[in-house]
Amino acid sequence: MNAEIINIGEELLIGQVVNTNSSWMCQKLNEIGVRVRYVSVISDVEEDIYNAIDVSLKRSEIVIITGGLGPTKDDLTKDVLAKYFKTNLEINETVLNDIVSFFKKRGMPLTELNRLQSSVPVGFGFIRNPEGTAPGLFYRKNERFLAALPGVPFEMKYMFENFIIPELKSKIRDEYIVHKTILTQGVGESFLAALIEKWEDNLPKNISLAYLPSAGIVRLRLSAAGRDKKQLQKDIAAEVAKLRKLIPEYIFGYDNDTLEGILVKLLAKNNLTLGIAESCTGGYISHLITSIPGSSACYKGSITSYSNDVKINQLCIPFQLIDKYGAVSKEVAVAMAEGVRKVLKVDYSISVTGIAGPGGGTKQKPVGLVYIAVSSDKETIVEKFLFGDRRDRNIVRSSVTALNMLRKQIKKAV
Amino acid sequence: MNAEIINIGEELLIGQVVNTNSSWMCQKLNEIGVRVRYVSVISDVEEDIYNAIDVSLKRSEIVIITGGLGPTKDDLTKDVLAKYFKTNLEINETVLNDIVSFFKKRGMPLTELNRLQSSVPVGFGFIRNPEGTAPGLFYRKNERFLAALPGVPFEMKYMFENFIIPELKSKIRDEYIVHKTILTQGVGESFLAALIEKWEDNLPKNISLAYLPSAGIVRLRLSAAGRDKKQLQKDIAAEVAKLRKLIPEYIFGYDNDTLEGILVKLLAKNNLTLGIAESCTGGYISHLITSIPGSSACYKGSITSYSNDVKINQLCIPFQLIDKYGAVSKEVAVAMAEGVRKVLKVDYSISVTGIAGPGGGTKQKPVGLVYIAVSSDKETIVEKFLFGDRRDRNIVRSSVTALNMLRKQIKKAV
Repeated sequence: MNAEIINIGEELLIGQVVNTNSSWMCQKLNEIGVRVRYVSVISDVEEDIYNAIDVSLKRSEIVIITGGLGPTKDDLTKDVLAKYFKTNLEINETVLNDIVSFFKKRGMPLTELNRLQSSVPVGFGFIRNPEGTAPGLFYRKNERFLAALPGVPFEMKYMFENFIIPELKSKIRDEYIVHKTILTQGVGESFLAALIEKWEDNLPKNISLAYLPSAGIVRLRLSAAGRDKKQLQKDIAAEVAKLRKLIPEYIFGYDNDTLEGILVKLLAKNNLTLGIAESCTGGYISHLITSIPGSSACYKGSITSYSNDVKINQLCIPFQLIDKYGAVSKEVAVAMAEGVRKVLKVDYSISVTGIAGPGGGTKQKPVGLVYIAVSSDKETIVEKFLFGDRRDRNIVRSSVTALNMLRKQIKKAV
Repeated sequence: MNAEIINIGEELLIGQVVNTNSSWMCQKLNEIGVRVRYVSVISDVEEDIYNAIDVSLKRSEIVIITGGLGPTKDDLTKDVLAKYFKTNLEINETVLNDIVSFFKKRGMPLTELNRLQSSVPVGFGFIRNPEGTAPGLFYRKNERFLAALPGVPFEMKYMFENFIIPELKSKIRDEYIVHKTILTQGVGESFLAALIEKWEDNLPKNISLAYLPSAGIVRLRLSAAGRDKKQLQKDIAAEVAKLRKLIPEYIFGYDNDTLEGILVKLLAKNNLTLGIAESCTGGYISHLITSIPGSSACYKGSITSYSNDVKINQLCIPFQLIDKYGAVSKEVAVAMAEGVRKVLKVDYSISVTGIAGPGGGTKQKPVGLVYIAVSSDKETIVEKFLFGDRRDRNIVRSSVTALNMLRKQIKKAV
């Protein structure tokens, strides 16, 4: 069953407000097996609203409109609906009572504009709004369902969860969409695509694959549509199992997992402690770890050694080592990791030193050159990377790469 | 001049990703006086892409498409464009060279899929992509302009700012929208609104005000529309001057300023050095400072003392002080700031200790309680704050508050 969302509101088109309503609704509809095929954002212009309704009803079985139901002159949705369906607006007594008591409760006077909000196009049903003054509206005919909801997120969400979802659920019991996202680190999108090309080509017809790349991480999303939810889950699980065999070294998690979340769990479960020494990542790895609630159980702290002084005095790195190899070197990365592990008395440590850019690069050591080391009392591993030339991306890529190196080292040991 | 945006990507329609691309583009277009009338989100389905292009070119002078330009099989935009304009794809040598050197620089092999990314529909122009492998595409005919950009935000943004905006600017010279954003810290949205209510009511008719709150910071955006750009700028400047008199203590900058950017400049200009001791902010302040290119000139480093051990051993805080007052206390905040200033041998320091949540709160010391200190050899100032109960927001609010406290202290001294 195809659905379509129409968001009405100038604030969305001037970019003042990010359209979180539509992504929220897409998620909710998806969960009950309704596929959203189109989202349109239009402004409060009669012609545009009329055309959008017309187009949507011709191509989609479910149409959800948000916005334009307020009391002011720029709110046109209800009038246009009445015009499109060649009907009139009539005051609805139930809705009027709701509005009257809404204002009474707040000790505020009822304006004429608010009284008019209780009008409903003849032939439409209404959805009561305990959170505000604009009622929702809906229209049902044959296989078509159209609803208009306020654009205010919490009013919209209330009506959506309490009316739209149950209403649609009762209609559709026949189709489901199951998603599974596989998270990979350490391999670029196109290289990954080449690695899994055959597997992708052989995916069953009802399963589709999407690549979602971000700095240092590529997510692979599998989606399966069909009538038998359990079978879909089995089909997806079978494909994930094949993928695991193909690229085991790159997969670190699923769905909403994060590297930092996985690491904190892994450390806590094994009673291990962590310390970090950061140079070019400047505190970002520490921030990622401490963004996880409960990280204080395993995370003792970090030293951001942005200057050589701090590397020498706080991380106990010999001056001669920095002098000989330079601060951005394999040798200093190792010394930082081992230094911070001893200084903070932790089981595991991470260190990163590199040239984030845009300045500081040389021919021998260009912007994007990064050394990452992870260390335990058993071994210290160091790797060299050449990332790009953007400071912000270099910081993020270095950080997720470091977290994943640590994850692998711990996995190997425990 | 009307513009239309088409975002292609299943991830937007299942609600996995919020469509921030379109709001960002709407903002940018608005700033140069281009009105976005339609935003459409569609999936990677050939028929839908074809129809969307067709409809958009009939009703809008400017069409910007994002998404579907990647190297993988679900990326269809280029093929559909070629089909719609009845043309072929041809390898473009400049783009191919860009892609080859992109991979060379990273020491990675070029795949056939990436080589194919250098194809361009005959009759189209291309936009080089220093941030990735997919080139942007554009088509110009009579009064119509169509461009296709990658959906990856930083690639899209680079091409949009460096190619699309200058291209469109050269076409439109008849109407301007002038924006000025005033940045405030330390005052909540509704309290701020009450403070400036009269000024807001007396704004000239052609100037509008928007409140843009985020954690710890409220931005006020003034927008003026009209044909005389210089006059608009004068009008806006006059209103900003009035606002400065009303709330001088809360304004820290304008437009794209950031507290960390202002601070790094201020420190560098006065030859001052900075060190940080973080507890509940877990490295986030250090990350903010080091996100600024050139921060290494004034920033020496930080110690994230997530455990008491680290506070005692690395920041030289007496165990007795923590034992007596607790780690989250005025006394420990002061000792952290003074400790890190001495240990790292810096002119100024910041310290933050608090309970970010969700765990760790007590009746006496609830989640959201944060002490922030800033210190120089002249004085140490400490303040107590009660933020909310959301971990992520508490980290950000504490961080921007700390940066602003330091900014004020330095301003007073230099």
